[in-house]
Amino acid sequence: MNTTPLSSTARTSLGRSRERGRTERADLYDVLDEGMICHLGVVVNGSPRVIPTAYGRVGDTLYVHGSTGASSLAAGPAGEVCVTVTHLDGLVLARSLFHHSVNYRSALIFGVPRQVTDPEERLAGLRAIVEQVAPGQWDATRQPNRKELAATTVMALSLEEASVKVRQGPPIDDDEDYALDVWAGVQPVRMVFEEPVSDAKLKPGIPVPPHIATRTTSVPAPQ
Amino acid sequence: MNTTPLSSTARTSLGRSRERGRTERADLYDVLDEGMICHLGVVVNGSPRVIPTAYGRVGDTLYVHGSTGASSLAAGPAGEVCVTVTHLDGLVLARSLFHHSVNYRSALIFGVPRQVTDPEERLAGLRAIVEQVAPGQWDATRQPNRKELAATTVMALSLEEASVKVRQGPPIDDDEDYALDVWAGVQPVRMVFEEPVSDAKLKPGIPVPPHIATRTTSVPAPQ
Repeated sequence: MNTTPLSSTARTSLGRSRERGRTERADLYDVLDEGMICHLGVVVNGSPRVIPTAYGRVGDTLYVHGSTGASSLAAGPAGEVCVTVTHLDGLVLARSLFHHSVNYRSALIFGVPRQVTDPEERLAGLRAIVEQVAPGQWDATRQPNRKELAATTVMALSLEEASVKVRQGPPIDDDEDYALDVWAGVQPVRMVFEEPVSDAKLKPGIPVPPHIATRTTSVPAPQ
Repeated sequence: MNTTPLSSTARTSLGRSRERGRTERADLYDVLDEGMICHLGVVVNGSPRVIPTAYGRVGDTLYVHGSTGASSLAAGPAGEVCVTVTHLDGLVLARSLFHHSVNYRSALIFGVPRQVTDPEERLAGLRAIVEQVAPGQWDATRQPNRKELAATTVMALSLEEASVKVRQGPPIDDDEDYALDVWAGVQPVRMVFEEPVSDAKLKPGIPVPPHIATRTTSVPAPQ
């Protein structure tokens, strides 16, 4: 495992809220490995475009994929991208509106992606993407055939230039506001997996596989 | 309420997966109103940068805010931004890896933001941002004072140029794959609010207010 600290280029050095910055590569891995989608930023005709998409990580490489016809990825090889992964962990509810915040973990990765052409690396990248979203699915389902692989673009982005920001903990109010008769605290927020819904066209007698079933958190219906 | 259809500029007309596009303005409002953070894309020195941040909506205007010293917003007035709001609704687990997908709703908004200088609009924008994250908080907590307002930049972005994409429903496999002995279906994903954690420095006797308490979903601890 790569244990070199994260880069400290101008744009990955935090100008504000410096105390929220993390410099360990392990922090970057943690943020990435817990996510399911990233927001991919590209520049198209000089304008920014931000697209949600799936991703996967192998070592110090992030993989994203797309259809060979998709314009979003077509912009990739030509120039730089920024990939952002964000976890919202809680609402920070202070006594004053000014000190409201959110608890979160986020990672920004900058770089010029390369199109993956090596067949083995393409498969490894696709596997990482699927396993990121649903661990266990790669081996449980039909593998991609030649035609499907040909229709898929796989892009690789080095994790060399990246920054990680984390805010956790209670609200921090101005000293005089602690005397106010105002409730303050954190409301944690969490992403949960609900009961799987089998496809109506499912062949009879096929149970939900354990790698899916065990992720399920039983949650009461929204009020 | 504005009921004109969404714009159909080149970049908001979907090239691929056209059936996922929504054209009603109400669809845009729905996606925005249910979110808590957006991903703000800007171009800095020619490179894309994607930053997670809070936002609020008033009619056909989206507001974001930041510290007056933050470089991310400083890039705003100079040029275009792209604001993306994404809801991940479920994992679409097909019989073949190629047809794996996610159920989601996303909105992309393009435009050149303007810095809000009118004091009333600044307050309205900040109120929308706070109420977006925690409805009821604006009136329950200490309002911003002059010094705090001076330290805050409020930016407004018109919702004129926007696109909405939605995927819902079961996996769609190739005809011959329905005979495979592979489970397929959707695992819904949902964001839940957990039990609020009162600040350790809270004045005794202040209960969690109803507008926070009623959002709470009791969720078993992660396994």
